[in-house]
Amino acid sequence: MSRYSRNKWRLKLQKIIYEADTPAGKLFDVVLLITILASIILVMLESVNSIDRKFHTFLNISEWVITILFSIEYILRIITVRRPLKYVFSFYGVIDLLSTIPKYISLIVGGVHALAALRALRLLRVFRILKLARYLGASNNLMNAIKASRAKIAVFLFAVIIISIILGTIMYLVEGEANGFTNIPRSVYWCIVTLTTVGFGDIAPQTPLGQLIASLVMILGYGIIAVPTGIVSAEYTAQSKKTETSNNSLQSCSNCLAENHNDKAQYCHHCGERLHS
Amino acid sequence: MSRYSRNKWRLKLQKIIYEADTPAGKLFDVVLLITILASIILVMLESVNSIDRKFHTFLNISEWVITILFSIEYILRIITVRRPLKYVFSFYGVIDLLSTIPKYISLIVGGVHALAALRALRLLRVFRILKLARYLGASNNLMNAIKASRAKIAVFLFAVIIISIILGTIMYLVEGEANGFTNIPRSVYWCIVTLTTVGFGDIAPQTPLGQLIASLVMILGYGIIAVPTGIVSAEYTAQSKKTETSNNSLQSCSNCLAENHNDKAQYCHHCGERLHS
Amino acid sequence: MSRYSRNKWRLKLQKIIYEADTPAGKLFDVVLLITILASIILVMLESVNSIDRKFHTFLNISEWVITILFSIEYILRIITVRRPLKYVFSFYGVIDLLSTIPKYISLIVGGVHALAALRALRLLRVFRILKLARYLGASNNLMNAIKASRAKIAVFLFAVIIISIILGTIMYLVEGEANGFTNIPRSVYWCIVTLTTVGFGDIAPQTPLGQLIASLVMILGYGIIAVPTGIVSAEYTAQSKKTETSNNSLQSCSNCLAENHNDKAQYCHHCGERLHS
Amino acid sequence: MSRYSRNKWRLKLQKIIYEADTPAGKLFDVVLLITILASIILVMLESVNSIDRKFHTFLNISEWVITILFSIEYILRIITVRRPLKYVFSFYGVIDLLSTIPKYISLIVGGVHALAALRALRLLRVFRILKLARYLGASNNLMNAIKASRAKIAVFLFAVIIISIILGTIMYLVEGEANGFTNIPRSVYWCIVTLTTVGFGDIAPQTPLGQLIASLVMILGYGIIAVPTGIVSAEYTAQSKKTETSNNSLQSCSNCLAENHNDKAQYCHHCGERLHS
Repeated sequence: MSRYSRNKWRLKLQKIIYEADTPAGKLFDVVLLITILASIILVMLESVNSIDRKFHTFLNISEWVITILFSIEYILRIITVRRPLKYVFSFYGVIDLLSTIPKYISLIVGGVHALAALRALRLLRVFRILKLARYLGASNNLMNAIKASRAKIAVFLFAVIIISIILGTIMYLVEGEANGFTNIPRSVYWCIVTLTTVGFGDIAPQTPLGQLIASLVMILGYGIIAVPTGIVSAEYTAQSKKTETSNNSLQSCSNCLAENHNDKAQYCHHCGERLHS
Repeated sequence: MSRYSRNKWRLKLQKIIYEADTPAGKLFDVVLLITILASIILVMLESVNSIDRKFHTFLNISEWVITILFSIEYILRIITVRRPLKYVFSFYGVIDLLSTIPKYISLIVGGVHALAALRALRLLRVFRILKLARYLGASNNLMNAIKASRAKIAVFLFAVIIISIILGTIMYLVEGEANGFTNIPRSVYWCIVTLTTVGFGDIAPQTPLGQLIASLVMILGYGIIAVPTGIVSAEYTAQSKKTETSNNSLQSCSNCLAENHNDKAQYCHHCGERLHS
Repeated sequence: MSRYSRNKWRLKLQKIIYEADTPAGKLFDVVLLITILASIILVMLESVNSIDRKFHTFLNISEWVITILFSIEYILRIITVRRPLKYVFSFYGVIDLLSTIPKYISLIVGGVHALAALRALRLLRVFRILKLARYLGASNNLMNAIKASRAKIAVFLFAVIIISIILGTIMYLVEGEANGFTNIPRSVYWCIVTLTTVGFGDIAPQTPLGQLIASLVMILGYGIIAVPTGIVSAEYTAQSKKTETSNNSLQSCSNCLAENHNDKAQYCHHCGERLHS
Repeated sequence: MSRYSRNKWRLKLQKIIYEADTPAGKLFDVVLLITILASIILVMLESVNSIDRKFHTFLNISEWVITILFSIEYILRIITVRRPLKYVFSFYGVIDLLSTIPKYISLIVGGVHALAALRALRLLRVFRILKLARYLGASNNLMNAIKASRAKIAVFLFAVIIISIILGTIMYLVEGEANGFTNIPRSVYWCIVTLTTVGFGDIAPQTPLGQLIASLVMILGYGIIAVPTGIVSAEYTAQSKKTETSNNSLQSCSNCLAENHNDKAQYCHHCGERLHS
């Protein structure tokens, strides 16, 4: 492989940065995770006016330290990877760039507020590290169950939206602009708020008929929440069973071919023959 | 069949409009779906005063285009179908008419607001197209699970309403008109809002006793949401198993062609013939 | 039996009033159900000031008609039942009396508001009739599942209350009286409102620390709602299986004693022997 | 055992205080439970200004009675336990001390409000008594199901927090400070309020785009609540099955005493000995 033809330190760095099965690689991931979380807390605190006024210098310096650390990481990733361009235009490549440059841009343009908040995208980097964790022992049952029920839940949520639009329009006609249902999109928004049992209360029906319809919407929402829950529950049970079966049925008796032996079985439960694992 | 005696283009059109298993039929459905969604967005935008003022002419012309498209579709459906009257008075026939005529009526009467919103009924047409999609491969497990648990969920929701009326009356007595519980229907409405965990907050108990009862209502609501969820979950699991079983019993008796044998069956359960796996 | 020694019409009436397996008994139950629901709607409408003012005479007369009907029913129940005293002091006996006398008392004392609302207790009578319906074919799986999980859900809800008291006290210390958390009971009330995801918004944390704790409470509530749902779901599945098994395993082969035959099996799946159902 | 070398009354007291399988021990637990609940109600009532003003003397005396009772219990626990220091620094030892001393401190320092509320920690003592109840017959299935799904629910809730931070930042950019989203932490708080379907309504989106994103957040929250529910439901079903299986496998090998044989096992899976059912 051409991988081995590259010089040694490059390969070593690549292993540390992109993989997590060496002690150094794990350490790198943990440090990166802490840096990302620290940077997110920084972005958050900076947005609080009272804190920003008091600790502006400290926050600014910390932000520069983190920006430089991310810049180094970004450069190292480009240097060590085999196909730099593929990385740069990959999902995580773009995220890495977008979450690093806002501070540099602020030097030139100065205090672009919206750009600063772009740094919150750094949080998406967490998924890269956690994705690795997934391979480190966590069972995939949950992920499989969610994947298996994804399509069905999408259909369900689509139905929720259609119901919301129809009921929202009805509420717009019943309640009217005087009671806060100023237009259909706002009515539909209210309907989603109600159907999902969130219930902000910024808009609430005032007429008896409106309250009657609202009651039906709420009871409907209360009833149909059972649907996605039932789907995931059933799929997860199915996934667990599949795993269980495939783990237990590895042994089959060489004498009578019986299967489904216990995990620790040493003799066949059907004919008494010794089992060879 | 008398179907074949009609002239060719009529039959062709009917296949395109009413069925979805030809490329032209699928295309027709997709175009119709997009038109319906576009028309719904139009109805929504029109109801927003600020948008309607700015883009009134554009919205008006678009609405006319869509109304004419729907009129053509309506006429084609009547022409091609075997029993036009049956279609006209069917559920979808009425929906098709009601969602098309408001614009024509507005020419004569002028700006009838409530009628205009009738056009939102067009959304119900989406179900006609999606119903077709159901036959195109999506599993029916979910639909069967909902159907199987429909009666039980109805009983459950009925119990929720009875509980709401009793607790609502109690809250009316406890809180009284001074705290917003002005009459029993309004109290019952509040109770449904609370039991379904929506919680608008437009009406909220103020007295300590009222807040105690409200707490019980909330905990009750939090507890009994488990019931519909449990039902759908169990029914869905049962449905999945049924499908699985009928899929796994690939054996069919060579003598009497009976199916649905047990996994380990060695003899046909219908005629006693030995099974060959 | 001493039952047969009583005169005939009494026995007949008893069958009609207390049982539901004769046509007359069913008719009586349906009429009673409609009367109860009508009386509840009356109580509700009477509490709405604007309606009461307009239709006072009509509501008053209707109320008298219903009260007299209930009085006749109450007297008939006492006459026909074998042990009248046992009925009078039973749960439904007390409910029947309490839901009938308020109107008579209003003749003597005049307009006692709280007493009038007592009539809403009539709704509890609905359960007596619906209890009968339960024996008329509806499956008992759901009821059994709820019964089986009742104790566990009670433990769970008790834990919810303990958590609410502890977290409520913490919120009282953190937020203080200035932000609406005026005392510990009110704080606990807020905590239950939040934990059950109702969220009225009449009290809401204002300090950053309070909002942080509130976030934890909400995520906790969002997470632990899974517990009662999981219980009911699992118990319901277990109940369904039990029913299924007991329905299917009635046949056992007379030759090899194999069980678990299909419902429509005519021959044993293990040895081919004919099955005798 | 050195336990028996201690004098008799000490051993007796220890059994009463620390165990619950003697009548005296059960009585002690019940009395303690009532005292704890009474003390909690006292703490609550004291925090209500109107009640505290009226019944100050009564509340104060009751509090002293309970404090002295708890002091006696604390001293008895130290005297009777084998390793007093281990108890003093254990979780429950610290709770016992913290929930007893505030009243004594109030004698010296006078009316320290925050300290008084510390007494609510007494509620944690309830768990010690209820823990005992767990061994008295209640099934452990629920506890095992929660334990088994703890890690998965933690991962799920962690994902909820990450989603909340990202969506909260987006809402901060979209809505801005004018509409109540004054900073990112507050925006994230709003996002958690919405995603968990609590919906206080103290902060609510005002711009159309904000309401659109809010709708997505709500539908997302409505959909993903299915995940923890599905996990607990499946784990609980699995736990129930495990118990059932281990209950049904009454067979134990007469040769090697191995258990957990399959239902239809004819030979021991551990030593190959024939099983006699």
